[in-house]
Amino acid sequence: MNRAGAVTTTDFLERFLAGDRLALARAISAVEDEADGYRDFLRQIYGRAGKAYLIGITGPPGAGKSTLVSHLAERYAAAGQNVGVVAVDPTSPFTGGALLGDRIRMNELAGNERIFIRSMATRGSPGGLAKATGEVALTMDAFGFDTVLIETVGVGQSELDVANSADTTVVVVVPESGDAVQAMKAGLMEIADVLVVNKADREGAEPMARELRVTLELKPEDGWRPPIIMSVATEGRGIDDITDAVTAHRSHLEESGGLTSRRRSRVQRQLEELLAYEFRRVCAAARDYDNLLEFLTAEVQEGRLTPYEASARLFKEVSREM
Amino acid sequence: MNRAGAVTTTDFLERFLAGDRLALARAISAVEDEADGYRDFLRQIYGRAGKAYLIGITGPPGAGKSTLVSHLAERYAAAGQNVGVVAVDPTSPFTGGALLGDRIRMNELAGNERIFIRSMATRGSPGGLAKATGEVALTMDAFGFDTVLIETVGVGQSELDVANSADTTVVVVVPESGDAVQAMKAGLMEIADVLVVNKADREGAEPMARELRVTLELKPEDGWRPPIIMSVATEGRGIDDITDAVTAHRSHLEESGGLTSRRRSRVQRQLEELLAYEFRRVCAAARDYDNLLEFLTAEVQEGRLTPYEASARLFKEVSREM
Repeated sequence: MNRAGAVTTTDFLERFLAGDRLALARAISAVEDEADGYRDFLRQIYGRAGKAYLIGITGPPGAGKSTLVSHLAERYAAAGQNVGVVAVDPTSPFTGGALLGDRIRMNELAGNERIFIRSMATRGSPGGLAKATGEVALTMDAFGFDTVLIETVGVGQSELDVANSADTTVVVVVPESGDAVQAMKAGLMEIADVLVVNKADREGAEPMARELRVTLELKPEDGWRPPIIMSVATEGRGIDDITDAVTAHRSHLEESGGLTSRRRSRVQRQLEELLAYEFRRVCAAARDYDNLLEFLTAEVQEGRLTPYEASARLFKEVSREM
Repeated sequence: MNRAGAVTTTDFLERFLAGDRLALARAISAVEDEADGYRDFLRQIYGRAGKAYLIGITGPPGAGKSTLVSHLAERYAAAGQNVGVVAVDPTSPFTGGALLGDRIRMNELAGNERIFIRSMATRGSPGGLAKATGEVALTMDAFGFDTVLIETVGVGQSELDVANSADTTVVVVVPESGDAVQAMKAGLMEIADVLVVNKADREGAEPMARELRVTLELKPEDGWRPPIIMSVATEGRGIDDITDAVTAHRSHLEESGGLTSRRRSRVQRQLEELLAYEFRRVCAAARDYDNLLEFLTAEVQEGRLTPYEASARLFKEVSREM
């Protein structure tokens, strides 16, 4: 743990704040692995964060999210911004999960000095992923990126949580066999600030856009109607429309006070995650916790206690040590 | 809450234990909604559970899981078993998310007296889904079903948790554009007891099966090598091979003692979930919790506290009331 623990030294912090990318990579690893000292590190950089604009890109597997993300990153970089990319999509080429062609594109992107890419492992506890992603995004924010793009596959609830923690959420769908309907059922419609119909050169794109428009009109009006944008990410078509829509949404949030309230919700969610996390930590550290858990598990399995009785007893023992 | 609260009456419990399906449906709703009295209800039926065999069916969206599940349910029903189906897949026709043809098939299935189908909402906290699914499966188990099939979309971590809580886990993939590779990256390979290449009449099925076989051979040997089965669910092809593989895996687990240890892990996970759940409940009920959370959120947002300081304070206040 010594190597990771080194993120707490003054020298390390200075290198991080001076923009040293090796220090950034190491800091992110420490945060992701919850290495010794990572909380102290986050404590030290926290005051530097809050300047980056966080954009979530989500949608079903195969919607072309990674290609879109790489075009967006290049577009922002070309405009003089420094861009951080966090990929929490197990099917993303950033995490090694996609086709060769995509991966080659990602490698080109990695050569751009203004762009920093980081993929996240998706294993571990469900709450853990949202916590780690938020902390990695925070680390990038504090490092000084102007824009942080967070790519997630929008199927499970924890991934929706991740996507939903961005300032602007872009939902990507493709005109394929009920994909849009399925995506919508999965809760993507509620979190979309900008809707993208990618692979719009395929059949069914226009009818799908119309269908989405009708559904969107049923949403309660809150001053922002998510635009529907047609794109062909592989050819770079529609990318400007997406960045324009994100800019428009950002202006809307800033003018309406929505940005402050979104970020407040994000902080509140983070506090509740940290609270649950602290409880798990206290449990794991409690005297005899492992033995008691093992004993109570056996009691339940052999029918002498119900899980509810057993967990009540576990809770009582743990709270005695708090 | 009165209606749901009624699940605790003796009369209701008698009807449930006598096999009244309306009582079952009502019990499941109470469990899913965490309605008044649901924990007492679960406490009362807990001793009846443990006889059903739980089969998880998971895989990426569009792999044909629902069609497979309906064939499996019919096969088990034809063999004289009573079968419960829990669908936690937002893209499943059981939950209304798929194409018309599928939905018609599901309706036919619903006419079979030996089969009971229940779909679960996927919204709510990530941990909540796994907890609710486990409790619904337990309710079906206690009701007296011989087999409970749990269909989940295998993308997010919480869905993997659900799938992984079955006795036997069947992972379904299709020969399409890197789907298998992506599914494997998402952690499906580790949890597969039986692997199904569905839509095996499509091009690429054989190469995919070979690829999967090679990958499986790299897995550490633990006495069970997951078989790879080719199926065409829409035509009912390969279904017998799947049920045979599940039976073989069940025998293996029973002979090796693996079933007991799997169920022990399940109980242990359940206890830990209930513990975390109890903590959240205590927090929500703590005096001034909401006010304190709001105050601390503002302190963090205005830069006077870091989230770590704020959550530590929150934890201290909450634990004082425990």
